[in-house]
Amino acid sequence: MADDNVVYIGNKPVMNYVLAVTTQLNSANEVTIKARGQAISRAVDTAEIVRNRFMPEVKVKSIEIGTETITREDGSTINVSSMEITLAK
Amino acid sequence: MADDNVVYIGNKPVMNYVLAVTTQLNSANEVTIKARGQAISRAVDTAEIVRNRFMPEVKVKSIEIGTETITREDGSTINVSSMEITLAK
Repeated sequence: MADDNVVYIGNKPVMNYVLAVTTQLNSANEVTIKARGQAISRAVDTAEIVRNRFMPEVKVKSIEIGTETITREDGSTINVSSMEITLAK
Repeated sequence: MADDNVVYIGNKPVMNYVLAVTTQLNSANEVTIKARGQAISRAVDTAEIVRNRFMPEVKVKSIEIGTETITREDGSTINVSSMEITLAK
């Protein structure tokens, strides 16, 4: 399943996501870190901590940015920035 | 001067930076958006608003992430994530 290699960044402490990414990189060759809105800076923190502190052999394979349209409960829509960082061994 | 084509993202409203980037892109072929820490998500917002709303012909040329070590007034150091997004016509 493709989603096995994706880590979604939310509002938890950054080390939770660092642990999730390093764990997945032990069983897969690459992991994609996805985030939206304010969590984007935490996604960059996660990728940098994994590379600098735990797995120096891991490289940034690609970084993509985009915009997602989210529908709120009242039916209105807002645009939110998104980011995907793919790390590979 | 190389810095002419760089926009540093801070804590102002995102439209200030959108205006700065679009202005520079009218006189230069590419602009680099730089941000650190929490401002990283605003940098992505800036790039996406410029591309989607004002200058659809502009492409994301490159995105880089890194870590900078900052020395605080008391002499201690902290690591902060950084990001550079280069937009080009």
